[in-house]
Amino acid sequence: MNNDLSAEADRADLLFLKSAMTLEGAFWTLEQVLHWVNEQNKKVTVNVNNRSIKALSGWGFDTSSGRLCHETGKFFSIDGIKVTTNWNGPKEWRQPIINQPEVGFLGIITKEFKGVLHFLLQAKIEPGNIPYVQLSPTLQATRSNYTQVHKGREPLYLDYFRKAQPAQILLDQLQSEQGARFFRKRNRNIILKLEEDIEERDQFLWLTLGQIKTLMQYDGLINMDTRTVISCISFGNHQPGIIDLIDFLAHDHKLYPSKRAILESALTVNTGKHSTAEIITFLTKLKSMYDLEVERVPLSSLPDWIIDEDAIRHRDNQYFKVIGVDVEIGNREVMKWSQPMIEPAQEGLCAFILKNINGLLHFAVQAKLECGNLDIVEFAPTVQCLTGNYRRTATGALPFLDYVLSAGPDQILFDTLQSEEGGRFYREQNRNLLVLAGDEIPEELPPRYIWMTLNQLQNFLKFNNYLNIQARSLIAALSFV
Amino acid sequence: MNNDLSAEADRADLLFLKSAMTLEGAFWTLEQVLHWVNEQNKKVTVNVNNRSIKALSGWGFDTSSGRLCHETGKFFSIDGIKVTTNWNGPKEWRQPIINQPEVGFLGIITKEFKGVLHFLLQAKIEPGNIPYVQLSPTLQATRSNYTQVHKGREPLYLDYFRKAQPAQILLDQLQSEQGARFFRKRNRNIILKLEEDIEERDQFLWLTLGQIKTLMQYDGLINMDTRTVISCISFGNHQPGIIDLIDFLAHDHKLYPSKRAILESALTVNTGKHSTAEIITFLTKLKSMYDLEVERVPLSSLPDWIIDEDAIRHRDNQYFKVIGVDVEIGNREVMKWSQPMIEPAQEGLCAFILKNINGLLHFAVQAKLECGNLDIVEFAPTVQCLTGNYRRTATGALPFLDYVLSAGPDQILFDTLQSEEGGRFYREQNRNLLVLAGDEIPEELPPRYIWMTLNQLQNFLKFNNYLNIQARSLIAALSFV
Repeated sequence: MNNDLSAEADRADLLFLKSAMTLEGAFWTLEQVLHWVNEQNKKVTVNVNNRSIKALSGWGFDTSSGRLCHETGKFFSIDGIKVTTNWNGPKEWRQPIINQPEVGFLGIITKEFKGVLHFLLQAKIEPGNIPYVQLSPTLQATRSNYTQVHKGREPLYLDYFRKAQPAQILLDQLQSEQGARFFRKRNRNIILKLEEDIEERDQFLWLTLGQIKTLMQYDGLINMDTRTVISCISFGNHQPGIIDLIDFLAHDHKLYPSKRAILESALTVNTGKHSTAEIITFLTKLKSMYDLEVERVPLSSLPDWIIDEDAIRHRDNQYFKVIGVDVEIGNREVMKWSQPMIEPAQEGLCAFILKNINGLLHFAVQAKLECGNLDIVEFAPTVQCLTGNYRRTATGALPFLDYVLSAGPDQILFDTLQSEEGGRFYREQNRNLLVLAGDEIPEELPPRYIWMTLNQLQNFLKFNNYLNIQARSLIAALSFV
Repeated sequence: MNNDLSAEADRADLLFLKSAMTLEGAFWTLEQVLHWVNEQNKKVTVNVNNRSIKALSGWGFDTSSGRLCHETGKFFSIDGIKVTTNWNGPKEWRQPIINQPEVGFLGIITKEFKGVLHFLLQAKIEPGNIPYVQLSPTLQATRSNYTQVHKGREPLYLDYFRKAQPAQILLDQLQSEQGARFFRKRNRNIILKLEEDIEERDQFLWLTLGQIKTLMQYDGLINMDTRTVISCISFGNHQPGIIDLIDFLAHDHKLYPSKRAILESALTVNTGKHSTAEIITFLTKLKSMYDLEVERVPLSSLPDWIIDEDAIRHRDNQYFKVIGVDVEIGNREVMKWSQPMIEPAQEGLCAFILKNINGLLHFAVQAKLECGNLDIVEFAPTVQCLTGNYRRTATGALPFLDYVLSAGPDQILFDTLQSEEGGRFYREQNRNLLVLAGDEIPEELPPRYIWMTLNQLQNFLKFNNYLNIQARSLIAALSFV
């Protein structure tokens, strides 16, 4: 690479880029990883049994606060909320929501092997996962975890994150979680790069970023937490016409035109259909016009929700249920606990439409209000819905839904089922879809939608509470090889 | 200017930069402006009379919500809040706060005259201003204003903002207001550039950005709303070594070394002591470690606050009082109304320490938690306090306070008294101070402080809720000529 190019990119960007372009890891081939995860899934014993929400060990309905919480007051609680907004659709409703105010770590340790950055992932079991074992970050710890409310062992590798030096931190961002299910929940998404030798434990393995992104093409293999952490990775800002850099990167690879287009959209700065200032204007306008007020109310005061022996459920069985489960997990050593979980009423769909505009790939981004958002709206995929709501929204058909559902095979860049976080969500999966559009999708978008390049999305993503987790999950899936 | 330079900057950046370098406006000299504002102040008749908070026309204590509000439910209310945090200092307290959830416009119309961008400011009277008449944005309108709750005339120039086309918008950002006084209040800071002829009304005048920044050196002349809008202006991102551009800009001016240093810090990208990723890490850590929970409670349930005939006051007369006033303003036509206002217990101090690090001017920025913040902490000046709290904070002496108070004349870049927003705050002024430090201020800062260049500050400022209004007021004052 010539010096001009490397001067424009910082070292972390280039490390990430090289790792993203590498499919042959130092230790594992893709086939070996798939085989190994399958083996883990066969070996593990998991029992998840429904238990009355009213008879859940350690959990109870607190009459003074009106919520469902743990006897220690830790972990999380299920609260009732009253939502008031002037956004399209219903102006006022009440619903249960998960309240977990403490920020946890979602952390990945990386290290260079043979000059390529490798990511230390863990085969982790969660009761809500499909399948149970998925590849998770090196560390996935709530504050309760690492302050030892569980009274269990300290999470592995925690000390690396607790004691991280600035020079070891490649990125460290606060990112939001599902705004329709969590009340303003955020996690700390952090990637460390270590120089020293690291003890490799059972159930952990080193993979390149290219391998992780490729493995996302398989249903339910890379868990939600891994997806959100790797979505935070950006690859640098280059002036238009970065052909040299791309040719350099493509040297050892056959780069398909669609992959090359994604790479160019990721790397090229200052060339979107809209400038950054215009995108900020777009958001400012929406955040100025629309209010979102959320007030805590007792769970017993939600007129559309019924608390029976089994669950907290919507009277028309819509949206989701809060169920109780007893969990038993283990091979040699068995762990047992009980907890409430969220069980969705249907599968969901998250889809981005991509289109070439002025020679650069753009994403049709939706500004979406969800009741748990910290700041009214976040950038979301072009289409984001529960399948039961496919055909109708409060104001009519959902924009672009028919289009993405009827996209031809040659338009599909990505189509998989991804599990949501299996520690809170019970067997919840969303179809993740990337659709390449032609002239049938015009450059003019409806209000509340805007075209952005991948470079622009990654730039907003760095500042907290700009991209929702569904958008980030799709961005994580974008592969350059 | 050569083509390479202009390719890097976008048109708005260059327009702003040129206007900032211009002291001779097309219509007014600085002396004329000063004279004219003085004349306005002499001509105006303002009567502001104290009135019992319990007998304020149109206002009352609502027993069901427990707050002080207008009979229409509009404008704003004074609420009680209970604050819980694990930040340094008190862990729990209750206080009154202004609740004004509706986002208003702070808008300036600009237009090119003789090739230089001019800003249309208004000589505006506010009951809390010192002096009463100050230069405000073209438009200063709450949502109540422009939806006509006042039943008054529609604000002048409002339609330009309502109907603004994307090509007319130079910037449009949501920015926070005083986090210790307002509950999550934000305004829409917007600058339009118009091509057509604009009717010039009485009390309005066209000034260059350089003129406005220079007029900030006078006490109480540029109001808080003008200051926040012009603080949003950035001047482009240039690679290090932008000597050509600066020489070009300095061509017609004698550029003092300190002004040149500010200009370089504003324009140079990617050269701070800390990278943007490191600054984001700094914030992520704080937002992850510290909680801020705010709950609304009735005003009658604040143990340290007394509601008597005159005011809602702290029992030790600290912090501020909520008073009632009857206002009469006018020359020919008299406007009368009554409202609650916030009267501070003391004058405040807001100071940035600046220091040359690696050849570039850096600002010592404090991450500060205030109870009305939307997102826990915002970037604040190095020192921000009420004078009554000068000597002590809950945990001892306030960092850097002694240093800025004892700075020598050769270190002072800026030192004025600025009024806070005179529509809500009664005769509240803060001393605004910029202090240039030498080796006596080390590069190592205490926790919760970080060095940033002006370019970095301006970049964070674009994304909402990153810089508090005190920091922005000081940034607005930074002049290049």
